[in-house]
Amino acid sequence: MKFIEKFHNIKDRNSILCIGLDPDPSLIPPVILKEKNPVLRFCKEIIDATSDLVCGFKFNSAFFEASCGQNVMEQLRRHIKNELITIADVKRADIGNTARKYAEAFFDKMGFDAVTLSPYMGYDTVESFISYKDRFIFLICLTSNPSSRDFEELTVEFDGGRAILWEVVARKAETWNTDENLGLVVGATKPDAFKRIREITKMPLLVPGIGKQGGDIKIVVEYGGIVIPAISRSIIYASSNIDFAEAARKKTEEFIGMLV
Amino acid sequence: MKFIEKFHNIKDRNSILCIGLDPDPSLIPPVILKEKNPVLRFCKEIIDATSDLVCGFKFNSAFFEASCGQNVMEQLRRHIKNELITIADVKRADIGNTARKYAEAFFDKMGFDAVTLSPYMGYDTVESFISYKDRFIFLICLTSNPSSRDFEELTVEFDGGRAILWEVVARKAETWNTDENLGLVVGATKPDAFKRIREITKMPLLVPGIGKQGGDIKIVVEYGGIVIPAISRSIIYASSNIDFAEAARKKTEEFIGMLV
Repeated sequence: MKFIEKFHNIKDRNSILCIGLDPDPSLIPPVILKEKNPVLRFCKEIIDATSDLVCGFKFNSAFFEASCGQNVMEQLRRHIKNELITIADVKRADIGNTARKYAEAFFDKMGFDAVTLSPYMGYDTVESFISYKDRFIFLICLTSNPSSRDFEELTVEFDGGRAILWEVVARKAETWNTDENLGLVVGATKPDAFKRIREITKMPLLVPGIGKQGGDIKIVVEYGGIVIPAISRSIIYASSNIDFAEAARKKTEEFIGMLV
Repeated sequence: MKFIEKFHNIKDRNSILCIGLDPDPSLIPPVILKEKNPVLRFCKEIIDATSDLVCGFKFNSAFFEASCGQNVMEQLRRHIKNELITIADVKRADIGNTARKYAEAFFDKMGFDAVTLSPYMGYDTVESFISYKDRFIFLICLTSNPSSRDFEELTVEFDGGRAILWEVVARKAETWNTDENLGLVVGATKPDAFKRIREITKMPLLVPGIGKQGGDIKIVVEYGGIVIPAISRSIIYASSNIDFAEAARKKTEEFIGMLV
């Protein structure tokens, strides 16, 4: 089944909300840290407490690479029910052989439905990934950090006129999207950008930065098309006590309530 | 010790050449594949056969992530003698918390001397890494793949004039380099670019793409400054038989011969 079909099926039953798993041992409830594998236990409980509410889970690879390793990320991926979507938020940025190996790692080996990639090196970065027609790629387009102005927001000469670099990323991605398995990552804290993005493309958007990072969940769905808001810290660290999973569920319900 | 001091010490004794470890199970000599951990065995033999010739080793994380995992990459990193430099070629491209976790993973946990990063999201991408003053960051600037023209080679408005995007990356990196632990990755197949890069900055350059990818090792050192040419496939797959380590050593000596 194609990623977007899978997303439509689950979002009708649960919601469009995606929970971001950024397990940081320094933020995991102390009561869990005594466990043999605290990251595994922590994420499993969050997943089990929220799986009937959300469209899926986004794994932030850095947090696994810095602690228990990607094998735990893979174990958790396999713990998630098949009808939910799983996104490897890895922002890889490589080409040729190396890009093929990353696609093998996240699609074949770990079995993720989707990945995030960074566009600097151009089409060669996405080529190996989009050849997996039942998987999906979210390409970084406009992010919500202050230094997005260093490069993303530069004015460039393009197509006989002028454009902003992130707009060029969106326009190029649109032309690469022949199998409809390409979307964009757009930060939640720049509402004007959503209007502009939707003038350029109807591609699905993955939108991190809601909650703790200050993005507003209502804005991101206002301009239509497929939008997957991803919320991490506000949900998974809703409580630092033994009730963290229950608190994560409550917080998830609160965010879903804001969407309707 | 600072990375650049370490590099100077070892390059005077051995050479400036860096071997890239891209262990692909489909290219590893069949005789090794019977081993319990063929990637570990293969890389160890290459390292042991060449350590007295090179300045260090560059690990391509994708190849480990797709096969035996990053724990083997870490084991191999620890197998390398302390006087050699070790580069985690990971091209990570993230910010904030996530960038901090990647820095923890490659610097604190795995103990690498240097990493490669991708610049699209701006200064926030490098900030967490350059705060490790004894480590080093090579920022992707201009690559040798055909689609480098998609974004890297666009003309942008910059500083009241016009520039190419990769030149802006070099110029910005120069301003961020207050602790002298930042350099650039420049592909070996674009000789004109080296001249232009050296007009912009004297920052150290990591230059992949020599050998199999068609770059010429003589060109990369012609314009001066610190240059670390990295050669992967031409060396590590010099033979597909049991003599692969010996063949890798011979090939390494050949490349070093071309440098003088």
